[in-house]
Amino acid sequence: MSGVFITFEGGDGSGKTTQIMRLASALRDIGCEPLVLREPGGTIVGEGVRDILLDPRHEGLDAVAETLLFAASRAQLSATVIRPALETGRVVICDRYADSTVAYQGYGRGLDLATVRGVNEWATRGLVPDRTILLDIDPGEGIAAAAPAEADRLEREELAVHARVRAGYLELARAEPARWVVIERDRADAVWGSVRAALAPVLERAGLRLEQ
Amino acid sequence: MSGVFITFEGGDGSGKTTQIMRLASALRDIGCEPLVLREPGGTIVGEGVRDILLDPRHEGLDAVAETLLFAASRAQLSATVIRPALETGRVVICDRYADSTVAYQGYGRGLDLATVRGVNEWATRGLVPDRTILLDIDPGEGIAAAAPAEADRLEREELAVHARVRAGYLELARAEPARWVVIERDRADAVWGSVRAALAPVLERAGLRLEQ
Repeated sequence: MSGVFITFEGGDGSGKTTQIMRLASALRDIGCEPLVLREPGGTIVGEGVRDILLDPRHEGLDAVAETLLFAASRAQLSATVIRPALETGRVVICDRYADSTVAYQGYGRGLDLATVRGVNEWATRGLVPDRTILLDIDPGEGIAAAAPAEADRLEREELAVHARVRAGYLELARAEPARWVVIERDRADAVWGSVRAALAPVLERAGLRLEQ
Repeated sequence: MSGVFITFEGGDGSGKTTQIMRLASALRDIGCEPLVLREPGGTIVGEGVRDILLDPRHEGLDAVAETLLFAASRAQLSATVIRPALETGRVVICDRYADSTVAYQGYGRGLDLATVRGVNEWATRGLVPDRTILLDIDPGEGIAAAAPAEADRLEREELAVHARVRAGYLELARAEPARWVVIERDRADAVWGSVRAALAPVLERAGLRLEQ
């Protein structure tokens, strides 16, 4: 496939949206209109899945059901939107993709990693990003700095989940260094420069060179 | 688990709803209130999935996405509704369950059978019905009798899919004869009698005996 498939991963508040918007704008500056997508979403299935996940009436969403919903959204998006776009040579930027499910439902919620990977593989029919940017952020920063003593049990539990998700992301990145680039979020001013540098090789293969 | 889990399978128009209503009513007559469910549905996830599947804006639902949506609905239903009900000794009657996905998405749409089974197994965490009633109906009867020559290409294609689904169901039933009972739909008057006879052994194990 002649296009370029770029995904952004990281916890909420890691600044994915800002960097994606900046990348899209930099691509437009050189005459390339990228396809910007988010997960879950981008198709009728994906938006429906998003509605289900955000439904306030939920009392307890089963972790397996949640994983399968994300996978369903991903299957429809990759088969009907991402693949066709890559085949016509477009740059596709996705805010979260299969790695999110491994990080959140696998590492975070404790589902069997091999099974989650297998479901992802089937859902995407093996479509893997050319490059994945992990915007790494310490999930403890916020709460720890604000009210270390007062953090209640639920906050502490949630913090523990986020710490597992972060550790999971870092493990995924270590296992596939040719695809992943980890960018530390705390060097805020330098983030965009790092993102641009990280993407330069894959964009150049498609004949694209971002301006400084 | 002390309850009884009964599922009904078969093509649309095979009379599942009629038999399920009749069974529920016969159970009520002997003082047992069954839990009657349908797939997809029965939970917020399931009803959301149903909405997605019935959305008229769909241009083409990817077969893998469709399978994962059914599996997500099933995961939530089995974890949060069916299992808890069986644990308290209830009779659970489900209009379609995991076998539908093997028949329709596996045999009908041609997805890899082992993978579809694996997804089902994971979604249900191995929860298998005590008895499954297949209401077998020849999908060709309608169209063939009505307008054999005029049936257009789409109708013929659809007929071919339904024939594969039916053959798939019969293969599933042959492979697990202790769980499945196949009832031919064309002996309409005898269907309820056959359903009652097919369920007697599993209901008796729970101390339930339907009246004649």
